[in-house]
Amino acid sequence: MSDTDDAEQELGVTKSKEYETGEWYAEVVRKAGLANYAPEGMSGFIVTRPRAYELWERMQGFLDAKFKETGVRNAYFPMFIPESYLEREKDIVEGFDPEVAWVTHAGHDELEERLAVRPTSESIITPYIARWVRSHRDLPLRVNQWCSVVRWEATETKPFFRTKEFLWQEGHTAHATHEDAWEETMLRLDQYESTYEDFLAVPVLRGRKPDHDKFPGADTTTTVEALMPDGKSVQGGTSHHLGTSFAEAFGITYSDEAEEETLAHTTSWGLSWRALGALIMTHSDDQGLVLPPTVAPEQVVVVPIWQEDTRDEVLEYAEGVAEELREAGVRVELDDRDTRNPGFKFNEHELHGVPVRFEIGPHEVEDREVTVVHRPDGEQSTVAREGIADAAQVHLDEVFAKLYAAAEENLEGGVRDADDRAGILGTIGQHGGYVRAPWCGEEACEGEIKEQIAAEIVMVPFEDEDDLVDADHDETCAICGEAAERTAYFAKSY
Amino acid sequence: MSDTDDAEQELGVTKSKEYETGEWYAEVVRKAGLANYAPEGMSGFIVTRPRAYELWERMQGFLDAKFKETGVRNAYFPMFIPESYLEREKDIVEGFDPEVAWVTHAGHDELEERLAVRPTSESIITPYIARWVRSHRDLPLRVNQWCSVVRWEATETKPFFRTKEFLWQEGHTAHATHEDAWEETMLRLDQYESTYEDFLAVPVLRGRKPDHDKFPGADTTTTVEALMPDGKSVQGGTSHHLGTSFAEAFGITYSDEAEEETLAHTTSWGLSWRALGALIMTHSDDQGLVLPPTVAPEQVVVVPIWQEDTRDEVLEYAEGVAEELREAGVRVELDDRDTRNPGFKFNEHELHGVPVRFEIGPHEVEDREVTVVHRPDGEQSTVAREGIADAAQVHLDEVFAKLYAAAEENLEGGVRDADDRAGILGTIGQHGGYVRAPWCGEEACEGEIKEQIAAEIVMVPFEDEDDLVDADHDETCAICGEAAERTAYFAKSY
Ligand SMILES: [Zn+2]
Ligand SMILES: [Zn+2]
Repeated sequence: MSDTDDAEQELGVTKSKEYETGEWYAEVVRKAGLANYAPEGMSGFIVTRPRAYELWERMQGFLDAKFKETGVRNAYFPMFIPESYLEREKDIVEGFDPEVAWVTHAGHDELEERLAVRPTSESIITPYIARWVRSHRDLPLRVNQWCSVVRWEATETKPFFRTKEFLWQEGHTAHATHEDAWEETMLRLDQYESTYEDFLAVPVLRGRKPDHDKFPGADTTTTVEALMPDGKSVQGGTSHHLGTSFAEAFGITYSDEAEEETLAHTTSWGLSWRALGALIMTHSDDQGLVLPPTVAPEQVVVVPIWQEDTRDEVLEYAEGVAEELREAGVRVELDDRDTRNPGFKFNEHELHGVPVRFEIGPHEVEDREVTVVHRPDGEQSTVAREGIADAAQVHLDEVFAKLYAAAEENLEGGVRDADDRAGILGTIGQHGGYVRAPWCGEEACEGEIKEQIAAEIVMVPFEDEDDLVDADHDETCAICGEAAERTAYFAKSY
Repeated sequence: MSDTDDAEQELGVTKSKEYETGEWYAEVVRKAGLANYAPEGMSGFIVTRPRAYELWERMQGFLDAKFKETGVRNAYFPMFIPESYLEREKDIVEGFDPEVAWVTHAGHDELEERLAVRPTSESIITPYIARWVRSHRDLPLRVNQWCSVVRWEATETKPFFRTKEFLWQEGHTAHATHEDAWEETMLRLDQYESTYEDFLAVPVLRGRKPDHDKFPGADTTTTVEALMPDGKSVQGGTSHHLGTSFAEAFGITYSDEAEEETLAHTTSWGLSWRALGALIMTHSDDQGLVLPPTVAPEQVVVVPIWQEDTRDEVLEYAEGVAEELREAGVRVELDDRDTRNPGFKFNEHELHGVPVRFEIGPHEVEDREVTVVHRPDGEQSTVAREGIADAAQVHLDEVFAKLYAAAEENLEGGVRDADDRAGILGTIGQHGGYVRAPWCGEEACEGEIKEQIAAEIVMVPFEDEDDLVDADHDETCAICGEAAERTAYFAKSY
């Protein structure tokens, strides 16, 4: 028994999500077997363990299918970029230079030109798009790659949120017109929104970044933002309209229908494993990881509960249930380990975030039923053995709906209004979350808030969703009192 | 018409597979849109275009499913390895040090310890396996990652065969016993063999590398070898039994059933995009790319052939055929472009390697049939419209069988015997391929052949497939005349 107690101790999450969110997150990541920190000399890097990588693979499958349905083809470009290429688009080099890891030697020789480990790949992909595009018939041209990138940021490491190397996808496209590129930018933002909402059960807000916070070289950077339980916003994915700046720097022209050489318009868009961070932090609790069934490696765990004399019948019944679920395409695990008692198993599967537990003992066998427990709230019910696979699907859908509803409640309750500086500072200071305030459009006004409370403008709604775009109103900037141009969402952010 | 002529010119492969294999290969890779060379300053790197990447994705899907069915879980480890970690297994550092790309700076700072861009990941993965393994119940432990690695070799670039960065998978496992690790080594070699033979239609030989050509630190390196049409061997994938050398260097021990701390036995195994090189080179011809239907992005192309007055009926019929194939799960493209004539389309789809072409004109519509043409040999036949999806599958299977049979004939005819030095040199000089010869086991004897004709021992058959393993024979080494220990396969290799 002491052995079990020790093991249960080790399974237990000791930190509180509500009061020590950062420590709690780190503990869940470690104890649920999601990631380890990299060795000394490599602070800021992590090892992504199979349990987390499987979440990544499932999300990748969902998003990649959407890409392929909408004309995107995957490719692979070199992981290094010659320094001279990085310098060709001046905003890119200014934006990323302080964060670039440089390869200077190969074998025993020094390189003639040093190579950047890609921080993002516009500078190596765009020249090839320029080569492949000749005529308007070659447009739109869309490529995407799933890879890792390196950005040497000196901030504190947080697995999946802030790491020096991270997994992501980066899409790069070229179009004939500004409008086509804008449509592409929004299509990808829609797909990111759907990945968060329909797959990860994390509702998001969408809008654009203020001009001073755009991607280097971009006309417009659009974003989906998710609100974490500690009141901070996560930039969940960004889709950039790059205008003609990269086309100019790298020479993407096409001959249009009148055979005129014309500059193309490009976009790029990326979503990283930060989505996993948002997923883990949004749903998990003081018992460990919580996952929506869409992304969970195991959707249902079947735990048989037997005594010596009921062992055979209980196991046989449980195996039948598991088999029926498996045939219906449910990802199911039968936990028939002899060496662990049911209480230990319950704790372990809760820690690991299995969405639905089936408990089967002699009583369930006798009554031809199954006891069903939902991971997020422990809700317990009984379902008939007959039609068990359909019932499982109903319960999985219920768990998804519960998780989404809780996250939506957090988001909806987390948007507040303010119309002066004190209101912004006080509201964020007290509640976190988003504060919606009229804004003149000047970076300086954001700066004042940033300095005092480390909150920034994470998003401005799209024009058709922002009343202040209409010049015919008398709102004034909450900070400087000049005429308000836009509604700004202030928040602290990851 | 001149426009079409020009375009056809551009589609045409001008080099001969038989007489200029290297130039022909480079031309097929370029004209079929598979890869481009990287920019100046990055010689040795390539850009993998969507058409080639799709081949990689399909092969990855086949192999990854096999891995997952047999207990492998994917993970992701940092792309950098601290120099001190690389040095902990001395054979690894000696083996890879001359080829390592080094990151020395990040942003504007020099790093305290330089970081190797992974040439292979034993040195970063093994320490984590050591951390995760505690007891015999944690074994076997298996992880795999799909990633790219960098090896700064100064040889001539050949897309997919020899590049400084290449895509691969690397599997790493730990086991309780030497025997378990051996079983794992062979299981992965079997899966590589199956990938080549059952998926890429490329038959292979299997065996072990001579001791002096093992992976650094390995007990045994096993290999699958494919024979290219120019008579050179390609090392198609390797699976290494690492014994306890990495377990010792990085401290993988487990408490066995008697609670004794015991060293684990490890394996690693990798297959790279070289498989794509072997695929392309084996099957393609002077008209361009040839692909087996298993891996082809489009398995069937439907080309409607119409005149003004037959356009509607032909197109409608062709659309019906394409739709029926699609519903049956065949990857089908309907090429209904108005701007290209049928001859141009035939050439283009031949260049791109579409395995089966359906031609549909008024005659086919009238007789309710379809003309079917096989890409590899141009064989033409007529099939009934009724049951067209089943017929398509039959033809796809036939194309696969033809490709496999041709490659098998090349391999079988490419293995010859010799029992003295002149025989080895003469046979390889004249025919290429493999020369099977009795060998004493000494590296020096291989060295003599290598020096004279740049051929080496690419493989030694497994013990149970090698008559010479039995000491009771009187064969002598073809080079030195000492007693022969093993049968060696000499060949030139990529
Ligand atoms: Zn202002
Ligand atoms: Zn000898």
